[in-house]
Amino acid sequence: MMYSTDELINGIKTGDKRLLSKAITLVESTNELHQKQAEEILSQAITLSGNSVRVGITGVPGAGKSTFIEHFGLFLIQKGYKVAVLAVDPSSSLSKGSILGDRTRMEYLSREENAFIRPSPSSLFLGGIARTTFETMVLLEAAGYDFLLIETVGVGQSETMVADITDMFLLLSVIGTGDELQGIKRGIMEMVDMVFINKVEDSNLNDAKNKKRELLRALHFMVEKQKGWKVPVIIGAALDDKGIDEVYDGITSFINHKKQNGNFVQTRKEQAKKRFEYWVQTLVIEKAKKSSEDLSLFQTHLENAMNLNSNPYSEARLLIENIFPEK
Amino acid sequence: MMYSTDELINGIKTGDKRLLSKAITLVESTNELHQKQAEEILSQAITLSGNSVRVGITGVPGAGKSTFIEHFGLFLIQKGYKVAVLAVDPSSSLSKGSILGDRTRMEYLSREENAFIRPSPSSLFLGGIARTTFETMVLLEAAGYDFLLIETVGVGQSETMVADITDMFLLLSVIGTGDELQGIKRGIMEMVDMVFINKVEDSNLNDAKNKKRELLRALHFMVEKQKGWKVPVIIGAALDDKGIDEVYDGITSFINHKKQNGNFVQTRKEQAKKRFEYWVQTLVIEKAKKSSEDLSLFQTHLENAMNLNSNPYSEARLLIENIFPEK
Repeated sequence: MMYSTDELINGIKTGDKRLLSKAITLVESTNELHQKQAEEILSQAITLSGNSVRVGITGVPGAGKSTFIEHFGLFLIQKGYKVAVLAVDPSSSLSKGSILGDRTRMEYLSREENAFIRPSPSSLFLGGIARTTFETMVLLEAAGYDFLLIETVGVGQSETMVADITDMFLLLSVIGTGDELQGIKRGIMEMVDMVFINKVEDSNLNDAKNKKRELLRALHFMVEKQKGWKVPVIIGAALDDKGIDEVYDGITSFINHKKQNGNFVQTRKEQAKKRFEYWVQTLVIEKAKKSSEDLSLFQTHLENAMNLNSNPYSEARLLIENIFPEK
Repeated sequence: MMYSTDELINGIKTGDKRLLSKAITLVESTNELHQKQAEEILSQAITLSGNSVRVGITGVPGAGKSTFIEHFGLFLIQKGYKVAVLAVDPSSSLSKGSILGDRTRMEYLSREENAFIRPSPSSLFLGGIARTTFETMVLLEAAGYDFLLIETVGVGQSETMVADITDMFLLLSVIGTGDELQGIKRGIMEMVDMVFINKVEDSNLNDAKNKKRELLRALHFMVEKQKGWKVPVIIGAALDDKGIDEVYDGITSFINHKKQNGNFVQTRKEQAKKRFEYWVQTLVIEKAKKSSEDLSLFQTHLENAMNLNSNPYSEARLLIENIFPEK
């Protein structure tokens, strides 16, 4: 069944999860009619958005991301917040398959009235970020969700993409695994605003303290990502709710810090800029394929490029000069 | 000093490494004059290219990628081939720093007359792939390099990008590390055309055989990437040149297989298509910013998007409709 834009907007405003889901599906659709309606919804939703905290969460497989998100999510709900989770499955580019269903992974959180868990769409970008994760966040904010938790698959480069659409970046670490990945760790370490060493018990507390010292030392030698913010390293165990409150305090401090120095809004503006440029690129390709005259031109240059005797760059340049002549 | 296009093309044809390097630097440049000359060079180079074998090589940090490439490269040179290596450093998106210099990593190979090692450019894409790795490969082929070895940083999503520009994808595996990364391994496993279990000695031979069985079993349950090709799993130790010859035989068989069923050229055509679309997008953004009238329009819509009360998608759509009106 199709819903009108008003029905969907009202559904979002009144917190109807089913209609919110429908709206997200519209935003994810590549169908032209859907896109048109999605744009109307987004344009209204964006005026209602901007009040959430967007947290990217990463960590190697095995760091306990799902457990952390479930327990942290429940903690936030107890504090009276509404929590949305955009969970990203380990997804392969060929099968586009998802290994675990997110709902079963966060069983308790998914039952909560004030929680909304959106499994990753089947069509994912590199790094498991949906083409429309940013737009989905706008809808979630309009629906009154206070915390948006964006889980990334970890250890890869998807972190850059998630860092590009969130306010804060949290790394889940565990003792043992992942430490050998020095090269990658370094890239990620420069992106993180907070570290949580998960799965710490009495038996490995000393190892955890050593790891904390090591992380703090590494962080000490890096350029401050956020001026005046010392990246905290928190020790805990999400399964036993240990350290969860410290994570919450850390997020609150960080967001306040960013709001006070103006970086909170500034970063979101930069993110909007990137989205704008992304859509300009996407829409131009769509447009070039749409008009029949341009389509045949597009095809001609594409075929030239594909005959492997011609430079794709030159064919692209010739096409652009043809479709968009100098005025 | 500036070189003329003819000088550079002749340098490439005659195997002058210094001029080849200059040409690659031109291709990597974002300066408009450089780009113009780069295009001239590329358009000539592409008619001389297409005869190499392009191999993507991945593996977790610690799998011994540099050692493998050095020893495999020396093996190829002994066979009379020319070998080019595009080495990708673990690079962080913030510092854009490179941890290890590639030259010191492949000391013996770099001294060979018939080897060309290009360190990664400072400006990298997500996943450590340069914006222009594809174009650099065209120049290397024109310069007569028979094997192009493209090293990726491993375990991330950069593999998709490298798979998108190579003929064959080789995974270096080691016993122990990396195996816990199940989610990622699956995605990568579906992309690989051959696996080399590195660092195998007498002491861990049984573990290696178990790992081989396990890998073959995993591969057995996957959709064949290349119809009729059973992904071989080779056991060896690059440092002692063990298994290197089998890797060579595997690559030869695979390339022959792809050439016989027509997939070799077909894949390269698909890759040229992706490059074409990539350049269309890139050039449109550049163009939209170039004309002063369009630039002010671009700025206006960009600012609207950045005021956070307007939907970046809508602003992009309005811009595109303005710059490129319906005919």
